[in-house]
Amino acid sequence: MIELTLRQFLDSLAAKTPTPGGGAAAALAGCMGAALFTMVIRFSRGKKANVDREGDLAAVEARLENLSALLAPMAERDCKAFDLVSAAYKMPKATPDETALRERAIQEAMVGAMVVPEETLCLARDVMAAMEGVIGCIAKTIASDLASGASLLLAAAEGAYLNVRINAMYLTDRVLADNTLKRATSVLDEVRQRQKAIAVVVDGMLA
Amino acid sequence: MIELTLRQFLDSLAAKTPTPGGGAAAALAGCMGAALFTMVIRFSRGKKANVDREGDLAAVEARLENLSALLAPMAERDCKAFDLVSAAYKMPKATPDETALRERAIQEAMVGAMVVPEETLCLARDVMAAMEGVIGCIAKTIASDLASGASLLLAAAEGAYLNVRINAMYLTDRVLADNTLKRATSVLDEVRQRQKAIAVVVDGMLA
Repeated sequence: MIELTLRQFLDSLAAKTPTPGGGAAAALAGCMGAALFTMVIRFSRGKKANVDREGDLAAVEARLENLSALLAPMAERDCKAFDLVSAAYKMPKATPDETALRERAIQEAMVGAMVVPEETLCLARDVMAAMEGVIGCIAKTIASDLASGASLLLAAAEGAYLNVRINAMYLTDRVLADNTLKRATSVLDEVRQRQKAIAVVVDGMLA
Repeated sequence: MIELTLRQFLDSLAAKTPTPGGGAAAALAGCMGAALFTMVIRFSRGKKANVDREGDLAAVEARLENLSALLAPMAERDCKAFDLVSAAYKMPKATPDETALRERAIQEAMVGAMVVPEETLCLARDVMAAMEGVIGCIAKTIASDLASGASLLLAAAEGAYLNVRINAMYLTDRVLADNTLKRATSVLDEVRQRQKAIAVVVDGMLA
């Protein structure tokens, strides 16, 4: 999927097919946020004002590169996880045995379709958290890219969270569903707080 | 730019080059939001529950297709507009005449770099507004894609707004800068309100 052109990806997103959908778009938004943060760090390295912070900035850049590599396949993984749900729904249900097997396949696939966006959500949070401590190194000239990146990561987290939630809704294992939702809600809250903090700092820089 | 692969686009976003940056990423987020809304409308057409709304849904789909076609080139236009700013900064400034010419070129290019993201911002708003009146036609099964699309359009609007703002900061024509910022702030507020309204509706559907 990462080798599709932007036009192909957008066309497949708009198409009347279950995937790619909001989960894949969220993953790509997360990739864009991580890429913007990486650009911002690269422009901040080697600056006179940051001479004492070179080690920290290099570590953040490496961390963002690692997280970007983890985020890159999430759009495709999200689609594959949901395609298994669609396939399970298409299983025969003519006999009680078939119905039971189909229901079990749906439930197992739905768990996958819930945990994959949870991973995207956690990666978006990790990207946000990676910037902690170096926000003060970012020059005013590039502050808009920092805040744009944070907005994209929030959109990624919200989209991923919604996919966790809608798939959790269909689980018969309510303990698993509720525990996952509780974790996901707390991660989303953290992303929201971090985005707000960056927005406030950038707002001050552009005032 | 729309013919780049996702991987190429993300790599160029992360690179230590002024473009593509937050403006291009915002434009692409807007394209993804519009594509998700289009998918949501396409799944809603032909449903028994929406039989009386077929004309409205068809009109919204056509409107979203038009807006998507306008949004698709915005990432590249944003880069080109800012590349003119970079080129102007590189003009010679050895004599007073050269300095004056350079300053004028910077100012003219900066106006371009401010109005292009303003156009992206307005398009993101128009995509949000296009959904007014048909939110009630969206089935619960696809509600997460509706809200994900709205989150992406908000990220697009915030990123575009930040680019309007940072470029307006460098304008010597303060009347133009202030009027543009006033307009842009009001459009961003509208996008925020529409996103919040969609989030509340979807939250209720998934409860």
